[in-house]
Amino acid sequence: MAETAHQAQIIDGKIYAERLRAQVAEEVARLKADHGLVPGLAVVLVGDDPASQIYVRSKGEKSREAGMHSVTHTLPAKTTQDELMALVAALNADPAIHGILVQLPLPKHLDEKAVLTALDPDKDVDGLTMINAGRLASGLPGLYPCTPMGCMIMLRETVGDLTGKRAVVVGRSVLVGRPVAQLLLAEDCTVTIAHSRTRDLPAVCREADILVAAVGRPRMIRGDWIKPGAAVIDVGINRVPFDDPIKAAEGRTKVVGDVHFKEASKVASWITPVPGGVGLMTVAVLLQNTVTAARRLAGLEI
Amino acid sequence: MAETAHQAQIIDGKIYAERLRAQVAEEVARLKADHGLVPGLAVVLVGDDPASQIYVRSKGEKSREAGMHSVTHTLPAKTTQDELMALVAALNADPAIHGILVQLPLPKHLDEKAVLTALDPDKDVDGLTMINAGRLASGLPGLYPCTPMGCMIMLRETVGDLTGKRAVVVGRSVLVGRPVAQLLLAEDCTVTIAHSRTRDLPAVCREADILVAAVGRPRMIRGDWIKPGAAVIDVGINRVPFDDPIKAAEGRTKVVGDVHFKEASKVASWITPVPGGVGLMTVAVLLQNTVTAARRLAGLEI
Repeated sequence: MAETAHQAQIIDGKIYAERLRAQVAEEVARLKADHGLVPGLAVVLVGDDPASQIYVRSKGEKSREAGMHSVTHTLPAKTTQDELMALVAALNADPAIHGILVQLPLPKHLDEKAVLTALDPDKDVDGLTMINAGRLASGLPGLYPCTPMGCMIMLRETVGDLTGKRAVVVGRSVLVGRPVAQLLLAEDCTVTIAHSRTRDLPAVCREADILVAAVGRPRMIRGDWIKPGAAVIDVGINRVPFDDPIKAAEGRTKVVGDVHFKEASKVASWITPVPGGVGLMTVAVLLQNTVTAARRLAGLEI
Repeated sequence: MAETAHQAQIIDGKIYAERLRAQVAEEVARLKADHGLVPGLAVVLVGDDPASQIYVRSKGEKSREAGMHSVTHTLPAKTTQDELMALVAALNADPAIHGILVQLPLPKHLDEKAVLTALDPDKDVDGLTMINAGRLASGLPGLYPCTPMGCMIMLRETVGDLTGKRAVVVGRSVLVGRPVAQLLLAEDCTVTIAHSRTRDLPAVCREADILVAAVGRPRMIRGDWIKPGAAVIDVGINRVPFDDPIKAAEGRTKVVGDVHFKEASKVASWITPVPGGVGLMTVAVLLQNTVTAARRLAGLEI
């Protein structure tokens, strides 16, 4: 009798992101029809970093596709702090704008912290202000970072009820590790935060029913670090040389996650690939956050 | 040969609090001598709750004993929101005041959240504003809640270097469990947050080199939940009937922690008693926070 090797179900980011964008578009249509409310997203780009330009264009396109009001402010690299602060103040005050995203990083002469402090936390759809970090840490409603929110959507739709599950988050970055730990706690997981100073990290990872990897070290998490049946969410995006030495010698690179996908998928129940996993959710969650912000600013939910 | 039963070292809150207050008094004297800076604490009490009056009096006395400038504002129970907000604004603007503490709970007609939102986060020596919660959750300098800070002082002085230790926090309250977890993470512990929905809580507790109990359930954590050699910090304060049935029948009560002290002290290396443990640190940390706030507002540290 041939033994069939176990193979984890792959959590396909494209499918999840498309589904979420469709849900957002439906909700936008409903808000228009029922309340005459058109969620509006303003994206602010300073300077001409090519990667940032691509991201900003994509955010604009996707928000328009969802039926939202979309504005992109492209400012020259030499924009002063005062000019940027004046734009943020104007967007804070603009009733047609419910979400404001300032594309980071800003040019070096600008003070990111001051810009984020000035941002209306109720329009902070990237979830980067201290007030939203505080709300999240306090278990209160707020706007939370998009990638961690994307992880949670994937987990809820695969694992189902997360109550009482042991979740281990590897990495404690402000953008991913810390907020994802808070969101897992909000779903009643027993949450462990592991990091570079953790002793016997493999053993800690093996405790996890839900393992979220956000360390930025290519394929660090091996198959035998994973509890059989676990759900594995890989947030890492690491560029490495090709495995094939000839291609590698040509300087060709590819993107891999923090998890050794091939090994892990023999042990886990569900796993996100890299690329093609969580990363694809980010913009869709941004749109969802903008709709949430619009609903709250209009008094339709807390 | 007689076997000596193991007995944990008791972390005496009185000794730690006195030592911390002495350190604060020294620092206050140094700031006066070197910089002409007198740290100032303003305590605001609205209404005439007897327990609050006792706390407020103690905070005033202890801050004066440490050589600090101390002001207590006692407002009548019928104080309006506008009046309270005007006082907070005045204290925010007062250069002689570096710490502002609004004694909670406020009378029911007043909006606590609005008061905390109005408080200058750099004078928020209770660490209750969303901005300070966000800073703590983001690993940034800020002012953090006093009881959790007291737990950390005790741990550092008994356990020493906390790097890589496994810490389990039982309870996820905004005032204790959540901030203490963040502070343990800042000290490079591998931190697990457990709570009412945690499965097999005894087993999770047994993983802990450092166990912090903050659930509010009398003597819930038993001796066999504790890893031999662990440090146990008991933040619970629970009033229960006396064990002696005659005294209990007379309606006499006493205060116990969340940890079964007698059992736990046979297993742990260090343990805080209740009463007489962490609770005694709170006011001393409040004074320390006020000195920290004064130093930062004067530009003497970040």
